[in-house]
Amino acid sequence: MNVIQNSKLPRATLPGLENVTLAGSRNGLKNLSVWRNLIAPGGGTPPHRHDCEEVVLILSGCGELHLAGEVHGFGADTTLVVPRNATHQIVSTGDTPLELIGIFSASPVEVFFPDGQPIELPWPT
Amino acid sequence: MNVIQNSKLPRATLPGLENVTLAGSRNGLKNLSVWRNLIAPGGGTPPHRHDCEEVVLILSGCGELHLAGEVHGFGADTTLVVPRNATHQIVSTGDTPLELIGIFSASPVEVFFPDGQPIELPWPT
Repeated sequence: MNVIQNSKLPRATLPGLENVTLAGSRNGLKNLSVWRNLIAPGGGTPPHRHDCEEVVLILSGCGELHLAGEVHGFGADTTLVVPRNATHQIVSTGDTPLELIGIFSASPVEVFFPDGQPIELPWPT
Repeated sequence: MNVIQNSKLPRATLPGLENVTLAGSRNGLKNLSVWRNLIAPGGGTPPHRHDCEEVVLILSGCGELHLAGEVHGFGADTTLVVPRNATHQIVSTGDTPLELIGIFSASPVEVFFPDGQPIELPWPT
């Protein structure tokens, strides 16, 4: 399938976070995964890392990127670049949900806690 | 730079098409490039291919994906998956500009005409 209606894709949740996998290994991809996340106000990802490059497009809302001991605030229409294996965390700090596109240079995407423990995700990657 | 204000990034154009490179080799990436394109009504890319995987997120407008001898119409909130080295063309068929995010599993991104001739782009990849 080369043309995908996003509205028909399954949604999966973690506390305060909703994910739709827009493209990934289920589409035959080996080197790209694209997720859309909606993070509720006050919600966020845990600190984590991936053994691949990551780019995050902030569509709406605002938040913080915690990376390499620094905190970077951001608003909508912003691009975040997360180096391979850099521990990072994204937190939604506004009054409205933070909507973002997460882009990864691998498929499937493996997610690890900072100590290397794998994180099981409830969605296909 | 890990947090990029998209509005401050340079814009480059081809006839009927405006590009902003949101992330790529200038950000230290080797396996990801992300572009935002605005394609005027009636405009489009030439038929071309890349030696990498590509995912296209359609944000607004409507158009056609020409791929492997087939034409796939699409509207907003759609995801397109283009296999490595598949010749493809994206055409803007609506009355308003087609806005899309092009995502590639390489940086820099090389672009070729179907016969293998390289296409020079006026923007950084």
